[in-house]
Amino acid sequence: MKAEWIAVDWGTTNLRAFAIGREGILTQAVSEDGMGRLDRDGFEPALLRLISPWLAEGTVTDVVACGMVGSRQGWHEAPYRAVPCTPLDAESLVTAPTRDPRIRVRLVPGLKQTSPADVMRGEETQIAGALALLPGFDGVICLPGTHSKWAHLSAGEVVSFQTFMTGEMFALLSQASVLRHGMQGDGWDDAAFDAGVSDALARPERIGARLFGIRAEGLIAGLSAAAARARLSGLLIGMELAAARPYWLGQAVVIVGSDGISASYARALKGLGVEARLVRGGDAVLAGLAATRAKVVA
Amino acid sequence: MKAEWIAVDWGTTNLRAFAIGREGILTQAVSEDGMGRLDRDGFEPALLRLISPWLAEGTVTDVVACGMVGSRQGWHEAPYRAVPCTPLDAESLVTAPTRDPRIRVRLVPGLKQTSPADVMRGEETQIAGALALLPGFDGVICLPGTHSKWAHLSAGEVVSFQTFMTGEMFALLSQASVLRHGMQGDGWDDAAFDAGVSDALARPERIGARLFGIRAEGLIAGLSAAAARARLSGLLIGMELAAARPYWLGQAVVIVGSDGISASYARALKGLGVEARLVRGGDAVLAGLAATRAKVVA
Repeated sequence: MKAEWIAVDWGTTNLRAFAIGREGILTQAVSEDGMGRLDRDGFEPALLRLISPWLAEGTVTDVVACGMVGSRQGWHEAPYRAVPCTPLDAESLVTAPTRDPRIRVRLVPGLKQTSPADVMRGEETQIAGALALLPGFDGVICLPGTHSKWAHLSAGEVVSFQTFMTGEMFALLSQASVLRHGMQGDGWDDAAFDAGVSDALARPERIGARLFGIRAEGLIAGLSAAAARARLSGLLIGMELAAARPYWLGQAVVIVGSDGISASYARALKGLGVEARLVRGGDAVLAGLAATRAKVVA
Repeated sequence: MKAEWIAVDWGTTNLRAFAIGREGILTQAVSEDGMGRLDRDGFEPALLRLISPWLAEGTVTDVVACGMVGSRQGWHEAPYRAVPCTPLDAESLVTAPTRDPRIRVRLVPGLKQTSPADVMRGEETQIAGALALLPGFDGVICLPGTHSKWAHLSAGEVVSFQTFMTGEMFALLSQASVLRHGMQGDGWDDAAFDAGVSDALARPERIGARLFGIRAEGLIAGLSAAAARARLSGLLIGMELAAARPYWLGQAVVIVGSDGISASYARALKGLGVEARLVRGGDAVLAGLAATRAKVVA
């Protein structure tokens, strides 16, 4: 089974490749060869380990890759483009140096914003994909995750965006801080989540005081692990929403992400009177890479 | 050299012991046998490894210990006392089970507050020590650290207190998050610290947005590692001060802690018109343990 072209989502911790044919995805493969564990010479071999079976001898197969692979510490730098701009631009793709004659690898550049300083790498492809899936969309796209992004879209361009470390802070606080003692397991408590969101939004200046309270209530008031986890998540998402208010207030919002975290954001936004539409993150990446590929070929 | 009694500050990561004579400290010793690496049977041997040379045969030497050693996961639980109360109370000391006939070990209980839920263990001894060093003090004691505490003191009692995870969040964000890339080394930049404090206090609802900006400015605007570290510290301390406003506004404030972090807090408070007095944390612990010992003997 040979691919017509290959779509690659290459982040810090994972490498995902998709063999694309005329009718769409033929097959896919994933490895843990993320950017974080590769040196510069390791990228091409890591890619070939996954995609060799999809390559035809004597033919050059296009590979379009987005994510941290195009960062300064990645395979080859694809310099940031400055907003306002479209989320993708075929002429700004950077060709990675390769030895294998069967592939031509193009890296998608990220976006940067000068003031306030901000960067994204990978999310621009999801935004392009969301626009491809929702033609003519004007409004705000929220991309929750390790580093959540909010982007204001107008007439097909990213006008401004803002990054929040919400997912990374949740991971650090729930797994590596003193709070980890009271929130093991996968339990969840919607009411505690809602209360956390409301609390952070109503009194954002108190957030610093509310975090340790989770531990203290666990020690002296029997707060359950499920309620502790959900409240921490609610407080952090509420803190993000407090700062992102100019993005969602009175706006059409699309959430692009994985199912679980997108549902949490949608729930929090609904409480604020915002009905968000949801797009799966994986669908958005593929649609964005396909839109990029279509521009390259055109 | 035999001790009249032995003062012990026994936290999660360290064990510090002081041999005390008529004139004060005779000698001291420290080990990494913190509560975190000991099981219940390991406490007495760990203590004896440090203090055996100070014990006289045929005599029982008093040991007074504060900190996590008295927690549920410690040597023996010294149950929290509920505020409002004095920071120490000789009748609430708990005697740890020991085999060696040369020692009698008393553990200082921590304090708890029901609403909002909060706990302290170790800081109550520093507060007692600060009161011993500043007789008649009424006002607020700030104890910066991994888990910073603010305590309102009136007529010798802890009326209320509040814990902030500021130090732990600084450690996690500067060493384990994406921000670590741009803040290696020990550099410092006072102006960046001041700006971080001001920013967090003026617009606490934006804190979630300001953290990733440190990374972004490093990537696209050349923010120095020293400025990045200092701004992160300023933002986190500013966030704490925003929530602790009822504690410091218009109050006499004493900061009890190590020199570096106390100076940062004093600088931030000075910018808010609050001239804080400083007491060294080590001095406060010893003064608190000495006051406890004096009550036991009396």
